[in-house]
Amino acid sequence: MTTTQAFAAHKPNEALKPFSFERREPRANDVAIDIEFCGVCHSDLHQVRDEWGKGIFPMVPGHEIVGKVTAVGASVKKFKVGDRVGVGCMVDSCLSCPSCSEGLEQFCEQGMIGTYNSMEKDGKTVTQGGYSTKIVVREEFVLRIPDNLPMDKAAPLLCAGITTYSPLRHWNVKPGTKVAVMGLGGLGHMAVKLAAAMGAEVTVISSSMKKKEDAVRLGAKNYVVGSDPETAKKYNRYFDVIINTVSAGLNLNQYLQLVKRDGSMVLLGVPEKPEPVHPFPLIMARRSLAGSLIGGIAETQEMLDFCGAKNITPDIEVIPIQKINEAYERMLKGDVRYRFVIDISSLK
Amino acid sequence: MTTTQAFAAHKPNEALKPFSFERREPRANDVAIDIEFCGVCHSDLHQVRDEWGKGIFPMVPGHEIVGKVTAVGASVKKFKVGDRVGVGCMVDSCLSCPSCSEGLEQFCEQGMIGTYNSMEKDGKTVTQGGYSTKIVVREEFVLRIPDNLPMDKAAPLLCAGITTYSPLRHWNVKPGTKVAVMGLGGLGHMAVKLAAAMGAEVTVISSSMKKKEDAVRLGAKNYVVGSDPETAKKYNRYFDVIINTVSAGLNLNQYLQLVKRDGSMVLLGVPEKPEPVHPFPLIMARRSLAGSLIGGIAETQEMLDFCGAKNITPDIEVIPIQKINEAYERMLKGDVRYRFVIDISSLK
Repeated sequence: MTTTQAFAAHKPNEALKPFSFERREPRANDVAIDIEFCGVCHSDLHQVRDEWGKGIFPMVPGHEIVGKVTAVGASVKKFKVGDRVGVGCMVDSCLSCPSCSEGLEQFCEQGMIGTYNSMEKDGKTVTQGGYSTKIVVREEFVLRIPDNLPMDKAAPLLCAGITTYSPLRHWNVKPGTKVAVMGLGGLGHMAVKLAAAMGAEVTVISSSMKKKEDAVRLGAKNYVVGSDPETAKKYNRYFDVIINTVSAGLNLNQYLQLVKRDGSMVLLGVPEKPEPVHPFPLIMARRSLAGSLIGGIAETQEMLDFCGAKNITPDIEVIPIQKINEAYERMLKGDVRYRFVIDISSLK
Repeated sequence: MTTTQAFAAHKPNEALKPFSFERREPRANDVAIDIEFCGVCHSDLHQVRDEWGKGIFPMVPGHEIVGKVTAVGASVKKFKVGDRVGVGCMVDSCLSCPSCSEGLEQFCEQGMIGTYNSMEKDGKTVTQGGYSTKIVVREEFVLRIPDNLPMDKAAPLLCAGITTYSPLRHWNVKPGTKVAVMGLGGLGHMAVKLAAAMGAEVTVISSSMKKKEDAVRLGAKNYVVGSDPETAKKYNRYFDVIINTVSAGLNLNQYLQLVKRDGSMVLLGVPEKPEPVHPFPLIMARRSLAGSLIGGIAETQEMLDFCGAKNITPDIEVIPIQKINEAYERMLKGDVRYRFVIDISSLK
């Protein structure tokens, strides 16, 4: 066992504080990683505050993990000591159900094992995330970081990157596709960069004009305010797909009208309350309201390689772990452009 | 002009009463039809009661029309006097927008012209439906009734038939597909017959055990009560597609759990109030909540030919027009198995 330094929520709603715990020794199929950076995801905040319920405390959050391999088990083939690697939202799954067999481990029919706030297959070991100095993960759930991507900037790709890349691919975004991105935050700004890199015509739908310059710089062609009546008129039935990253209460029916016949709005964020959905906008243009959850492991590697080839990285603000509680408060106010990344050297 | 006998709602919420009005003389591209039968659709009731608003009164409902051709305009090529024909929910559209060009006239981007309660392209002539002795319709919106189908039973195919056939085809139902049909009424019973004829494994989800025998006779393999906790367990993530014909308030989130990963629930009915939809069931298995609206003209002919080839017809109860108000009351109570059809000879 290896003692690992971390920051944890000891109880729901408490500020994160120093914590130490043991990581297992690498098994034959494990990769041991020295963590260098970990991104801060909005879902970290939901979970340390136990807003989704059933949280396991003490909880070490963090599922946007990058670092270097320090040891590999005897049967590990894909990685060697010194490799630049990443770990995202999952550290295990059954690997044999139809979903896993199709490379969709996030939909594992036995339930995937989350990187933190989850129980390992042994039914008693709690998983702990990347706000920590080390992690040990089975080879199948370790990703390779392209050489040209800086480690700090690569971190958020492991969740924000794949969560937006996967629906863009699944809903067949290609050159000329009209994509709207609702909400320009951690997910939204990656959706803009990735969709633009896929050749789509990207429109950002925001709640104010504040981020217009940013949106254009990130790759958006158009920028509109959702509540502006002109938006409803000008973009009626306009978009092939809307990537909706907004988890606050929104009138989905209004925005569904902006989707073309046979188009989709894809929800990535989870609001606390269900939203009323009227069948009329669905029926009248055979639209779909869908959801998407991160992406499979093979697709995550594909996304990393795509970002490497196109030199796409998130806009980040690097913080020491000691500023995490302050960062959460700023995140709640939308005061981050666009992702906090913890420099884990501050823990060592 | 030809004087036409009919039953109409003279005002919202009034009982239907006799009415007469003029149909136009056939133009060069028109087909004049002597109506023999007209099905009674739940949307007739919504509209005569002005529940969707903006109703045009007096209103002659009816969009499940079958009859014989009595005259054709000079340029009509596809029909001749004596032909057995049908007219569904549409009598015109722009025929040139992308949707019309793809054979999806129901989604015409100029707005399709409804068979009744709609305004013709001239902007002043109100369309009147099939609770009447005659109708004149442009050739493109006239369907051919297969010779082996009885006229009375063919009538409901023009709306209930195509409204269920189209989503089954669009969502790719084929031998072995697991289809659930929610609600066993006019639409639901056609969905069961059609899905079974396509080779699907059909499950009816109903509110009680009352229609179990019927469901099996119609072609369902399984019959379950939606509120039974066993249903949620046994059919969790089971269905490729759920055809939801229920327009009353239902917990959609509960039923979405019965849909497989990447599957869809398709809404055909329009409740008066929007239902709360939680993103979790959509996100956690990449499900879609979609809607579907009747079908295009070419697809309606395909459906009629499919029903002819497979000898599929609805279960009907034929009534004289004088019983229409009583039939509405019975329809509201679900007291019809499964579609009223008006014998238009009672009007003559």
